[in-house]
Amino acid sequence: MLALTMGDPAGIGPEIAQGAWRALRGELPFVLIGAESMGRPVDSVAEAASIFAEALPVLPVALPVAPAPGRPDLRNAPAVIESIARAVELFRDGDVGGVVTNPIAKSVLKQAGFPHPGHTEFLAALYDAPGREVMMLAGPSLRVVPVTIHLSLREAIDRLSTEEIVRVARTTDRALRRDFAIPAPRLAIAGLNPHAGEDGYMGMEEIVLIRPAIAQLRAEGIDASDPLPPDTMFTEAARARYDAAICMYHDQALIPLKTIDMANGVNVTLGLPLVRTSPDHGTAFDIAGRGLADPSSLVAALRMADRIARNRSIA
Amino acid sequence: MLALTMGDPAGIGPEIAQGAWRALRGELPFVLIGAESMGRPVDSVAEAASIFAEALPVLPVALPVAPAPGRPDLRNAPAVIESIARAVELFRDGDVGGVVTNPIAKSVLKQAGFPHPGHTEFLAALYDAPGREVMMLAGPSLRVVPVTIHLSLREAIDRLSTEEIVRVARTTDRALRRDFAIPAPRLAIAGLNPHAGEDGYMGMEEIVLIRPAIAQLRAEGIDASDPLPPDTMFTEAARARYDAAICMYHDQALIPLKTIDMANGVNVTLGLPLVRTSPDHGTAFDIAGRGLADPSSLVAALRMADRIARNRSIA
Repeated sequence: MLALTMGDPAGIGPEIAQGAWRALRGELPFVLIGAESMGRPVDSVAEAASIFAEALPVLPVALPVAPAPGRPDLRNAPAVIESIARAVELFRDGDVGGVVTNPIAKSVLKQAGFPHPGHTEFLAALYDAPGREVMMLAGPSLRVVPVTIHLSLREAIDRLSTEEIVRVARTTDRALRRDFAIPAPRLAIAGLNPHAGEDGYMGMEEIVLIRPAIAQLRAEGIDASDPLPPDTMFTEAARARYDAAICMYHDQALIPLKTIDMANGVNVTLGLPLVRTSPDHGTAFDIAGRGLADPSSLVAALRMADRIARNRSIA
Repeated sequence: MLALTMGDPAGIGPEIAQGAWRALRGELPFVLIGAESMGRPVDSVAEAASIFAEALPVLPVALPVAPAPGRPDLRNAPAVIESIARAVELFRDGDVGGVVTNPIAKSVLKQAGFPHPGHTEFLAALYDAPGREVMMLAGPSLRVVPVTIHLSLREAIDRLSTEEIVRVARTTDRALRRDFAIPAPRLAIAGLNPHAGEDGYMGMEEIVLIRPAIAQLRAEGIDASDPLPPDTMFTEAARARYDAAICMYHDQALIPLKTIDMANGVNVTLGLPLVRTSPDHGTAFDIAGRGLADPSSLVAALRMADRIARNRSIA
């Protein structure tokens, strides 16, 4: 059993929750934590499991304002946050094996006083482990883990450090073993510069920052590649040679992932005790409530959370 | 008829020239400008055309040293350069409709005193038009044009300017009309930062540099998009909405191109009177002479040069 948060109730979360329920009803039970109107209200996870074949079960959270698709309302922000906090509680209590989060509107939550840049950081704070979280994006044939995330490209270069590369790669190695059941993970380490700098001819970061990180990882027994030329490391033949790519900046990770397969990417939080995935898209306010939203990424996120939960319980 | 340079004779150029001849013998005549031993020597382009069905014709260039696969020799550098210069001469004289260049070893030529970073800059110098050249990389379903090329990522950001974006996009627009026979080209302009900066929240270059370039291009009647989030602009659905993507740095252009299709990318020089393409790979000294080299990209380069030449003669 998994817990699914409602995300922003004015976004596509409620309708893709229904779509995912239709896709998974015979297969993979989950309970939505949201407004009563989003499915069939239940009182417990046990009750949710017993009715899952008939309807999408909902553990109710009170919304002060009825959601209007496409028009987020600040007054519902506390309920959005409560949905996340209750999902984490259910995981801590052992009632669910994992948490899947629907998209939230960061700007709306920010206006409502929410101090975290996004889900991942909020979850790290709930676990009292800020700075431990790592974001992986996983598609059917590629897993990428950016070392820096929501920074301008210039700031991403400025903040890149040997320590962060080591932390992110080490966390990824552990998660591939425990959560993805890969006994000997192979990490592809991307260069920062074109052609991975060509021995310093086009940038020094490979020599000064990335190679020392690789040396440290190898000393810990982690299978890390040399800094790879970014443009050739995501071809089909290259992808077959590693289990995850450690990327130096947001678009180096996200361009290949989304170019290969836009619909089936899943965001996975590594480095926390929590099992947590989410679809790799936003609230899509522009199409919310019109029956156009594609539940594929949410379905993939639910399947992946289930697989991680199983791998952990077997390990 | 096209002219094909030999490139570095110790690289895979000679063998992919043979492979391309086998693939194209009934279809698309070309003459190699290289060592006598690389095919059947001829005295003129006319003779090359007459024997093309039977053998790969070669307009001879004298090599001081017999080439050893995988071991480039400085003493052959002048012949490598002569091969390029003669191909350009044939184009200027109207004997060939385009030039296709095999890969050269930049480090070898540099040691031999060649002052240009690569083919493209040498060709611009031959045309007395330095700074006019633009590099396009074209695959079967994507054309990309980087505004900055062989610079470290940090330097690429530092050197990005409104003027260069305008120059590169304008040259691309003209080439799409003249060389690719697209009457109303649509240009996708990439942002520099994640999410194209999110209105300045993650970087200011979109606002300060890229939007002013777009305004100027539109004022000239060029169909240029807003700055697009780099991670979602290369999906199959997104690619269908434009004819070329103007990219801000090397890997933003090359990652999606090579991830989609590694083997069939073609490098096209825009902005010069010359019709010139080349395969999108290097000399591959590590596999030269072993019969392993894939001629696909060279075949695609020859086909594209032929198509450009035809489009120009029709226009």
